[in-house]
Amino acid sequence: MAPPDGLRFDTISFLSDLGTTDEYVGVVRSVIRSIVPAVGVVDITHGIAPYDTRAGGLALARSVQYLCPGVVLALVDPGIGVDRRRIAVEVGDGAAVLVGPDNGVLAPAVAMVGGATRAFSLDRTDFHLPSAGPVFDGRDVLAPAAAHLCVGVPLEELGTEVDPASLLPGVLPVARMEDDVLVAEVLWADRFGNLQLNIDPDDLAAHTADDAVVGIRSRTGIRTARRVTGAGELGVGQVGLLVDGYGLLSLVVGRGSAGEELGIGPSDEVQLFDADTGPGSAPAPVPVQLTRRDR
Amino acid sequence: MAPPDGLRFDTISFLSDLGTTDEYVGVVRSVIRSIVPAVGVVDITHGIAPYDTRAGGLALARSVQYLCPGVVLALVDPGIGVDRRRIAVEVGDGAAVLVGPDNGVLAPAVAMVGGATRAFSLDRTDFHLPSAGPVFDGRDVLAPAAAHLCVGVPLEELGTEVDPASLLPGVLPVARMEDDVLVAEVLWADRFGNLQLNIDPDDLAAHTADDAVVGIRSRTGIRTARRVTGAGELGVGQVGLLVDGYGLLSLVVGRGSAGEELGIGPSDEVQLFDADTGPGSAPAPVPVQLTRRDR
Amino acid sequence: MAPPDGLRFDTISFLSDLGTTDEYVGVVRSVIRSIVPAVGVVDITHGIAPYDTRAGGLALARSVQYLCPGVVLALVDPGIGVDRRRIAVEVGDGAAVLVGPDNGVLAPAVAMVGGATRAFSLDRTDFHLPSAGPVFDGRDVLAPAAAHLCVGVPLEELGTEVDPASLLPGVLPVARMEDDVLVAEVLWADRFGNLQLNIDPDDLAAHTADDAVVGIRSRTGIRTARRVTGAGELGVGQVGLLVDGYGLLSLVVGRGSAGEELGIGPSDEVQLFDADTGPGSAPAPVPVQLTRRDR
Repeated sequence: MAPPDGLRFDTISFLSDLGTTDEYVGVVRSVIRSIVPAVGVVDITHGIAPYDTRAGGLALARSVQYLCPGVVLALVDPGIGVDRRRIAVEVGDGAAVLVGPDNGVLAPAVAMVGGATRAFSLDRTDFHLPSAGPVFDGRDVLAPAAAHLCVGVPLEELGTEVDPASLLPGVLPVARMEDDVLVAEVLWADRFGNLQLNIDPDDLAAHTADDAVVGIRSRTGIRTARRVTGAGELGVGQVGLLVDGYGLLSLVVGRGSAGEELGIGPSDEVQLFDADTGPGSAPAPVPVQLTRRDR
Repeated sequence: MAPPDGLRFDTISFLSDLGTTDEYVGVVRSVIRSIVPAVGVVDITHGIAPYDTRAGGLALARSVQYLCPGVVLALVDPGIGVDRRRIAVEVGDGAAVLVGPDNGVLAPAVAMVGGATRAFSLDRTDFHLPSAGPVFDGRDVLAPAAAHLCVGVPLEELGTEVDPASLLPGVLPVARMEDDVLVAEVLWADRFGNLQLNIDPDDLAAHTADDAVVGIRSRTGIRTARRVTGAGELGVGQVGLLVDGYGLLSLVVGRGSAGEELGIGPSDEVQLFDADTGPGSAPAPVPVQLTRRDR
Repeated sequence: MAPPDGLRFDTISFLSDLGTTDEYVGVVRSVIRSIVPAVGVVDITHGIAPYDTRAGGLALARSVQYLCPGVVLALVDPGIGVDRRRIAVEVGDGAAVLVGPDNGVLAPAVAMVGGATRAFSLDRTDFHLPSAGPVFDGRDVLAPAAAHLCVGVPLEELGTEVDPASLLPGVLPVARMEDDVLVAEVLWADRFGNLQLNIDPDDLAAHTADDAVVGIRSRTGIRTARRVTGAGELGVGQVGLLVDGYGLLSLVVGRGSAGEELGIGPSDEVQLFDADTGPGSAPAPVPVQLTRRDR
């Protein structure tokens, strides 16, 4: 379906850690609309924790298969170091372009859709907005680039081509076996307290004899979890393990929040083991340091 | 005014308990836009407390008279039980269609606009999205149905017609008299701490001799409230009772929050009585159980 | 660029203290869309603290240079007193119109764009919506006025012209010298904890011998701040002073929140002095009263 109004792309999907209490998101949207009034801006979320590039990258990767063809604008940036590039990553031979800082936030989504076709450093300042102070990358560089891409400005005019292999990769934790224990990690706690793990159903089936009931160990203790297909099958406070809407395993709790019930959240380690044989000799997870990551 | 672009409806009014911190709302909007790019999606709110079908139903009922003609999409669903239907409820002989789970969340709004003309169970899976895991009703069933309705797909093609009388009703509390006391309930506490009650001005006028000053008893104590037309008439911390912008009585406080001042909120009981004669022998309201409802 | 669809303005930029948990913003958007479906509504923010006209006015002033030409709708209103006017302020000889209560919330933005050309009191009730209760200004008066302006209804038809000099001004704090100390105030703490001050770089340069390191005194103590161009130059917990994206000086902290590190926020006083000579004899800032302002 070709976009109307002679646009190359008619949708910008927008994710950030800017929140909606300040006017940052409204200003970025106004900058886009000033350049290309006919484009539709779809907010994915602006509630990524400040500077949390891992959470932003994961949210984008979970969303990307549902997004409209067009431009993705991802503004999550600890901004440490002055030489971090502002990039546009083309995927699908031009089907879509992801725009953001070169800090790994785009990487999981780019991988999800088949990898980068081309990449550009957005260093042509004639497409940047002037600033009364230092450059605010989102407002002054990345939003204008996203808008100009929709108008049809070629990537080559917005910046210098760079080797996609030079882009900062996103580093995502991989589950591993230690003896008979599957050592996983919480990727995401959603509004309802569901805890998404970095394992898929096949991983679990391969490593537990009877996966109808699975032992769960975290830094807060040991529980058993029933395999279910929906949280509605669980009694109040019962822990369950299900394949979530993204195809990954999630911990859930009957009529409650698994995050609250288990006292854990993103980046916390979770060990899964055969409920009959126990956790074996794997060292128990230790509490995470309660300091900010990514900063 | 006929919608442009050959659409049957050009607006989807969207209410949910999904919050805006996760990407759920953005994904649902992307699904809609992928099917029908020209439709306008108006967010009513996504801040309904998780699973709170009563609060969602009330917010929808308060809003419905102001919404644009078209489709209403309501995603608030405790998801308990597997046989809860996904429904589309036609009102006004086709003027609008409300789409959501059959759990009562649509019922107060449907009643407000004159009741259902027809109702359908959205069971035609060829209009559902495939899922990597279990079906996420909002994303995979209800949003696509809302979008297809805008395109012009007839209700008959999206599902099986059901008897509107078989839909789960919304159960809303009705105020009642006990001796000389009007026993009411808080329906809603808004951002400003105003407490909307389930009584209208006529109820009160019929039951108090002098309604310029009214006695108020809640589980936190007894106060008097002045009848006012705006909170600006009240001194700091004074309690007032006014007809709010929806035509119901609300408790307000001068330069403050009635919710904080009185220490009560939604579902709490409030007794109103003649300030001269006192609350009589009605039993005092007891504290509500601080557990989640609807789960 | 002339708006499409025969509109006079095709954008309404919308700022409020209504939050997004209640349905207020959705209802206002629905009212606008019912009158003028083709208009684009850009949310600046709805997270202004309840009734905080100063914060709303500052957010609008920071945003205004980036907004699309058209109508600005600002709904922040303590609503004290019944005779506060609802106004539309024309700027730039008709290039844009700001609509809101006459309580100072529009004043800083109007000043930023060169002052009012004309002003009108929105007292023609045939353009208001009927209400089941008392008038809710945003929904019943101001949103319909904004929408009718986009359609092309002249200001003269919406209300009575008033003298722009009669509008309530916004009162913003001005930094001042006391002996050798520059006495400033925090205007804004953003999501990241950056603290914007009411001073620009020239003020500071004029008043400190060596502005590479500046002494900072607040009610919570004395610190030194390094002049930097980005927070990335600072070590963990180090305090810095930079020119922010709006051209004003902001206090920032390396890998953290200046608001948390210094324990201060909007309206708090900050004294800046030459780090070599010390704060002199200026009286130390005292804690602000922790009561609501503007009410």
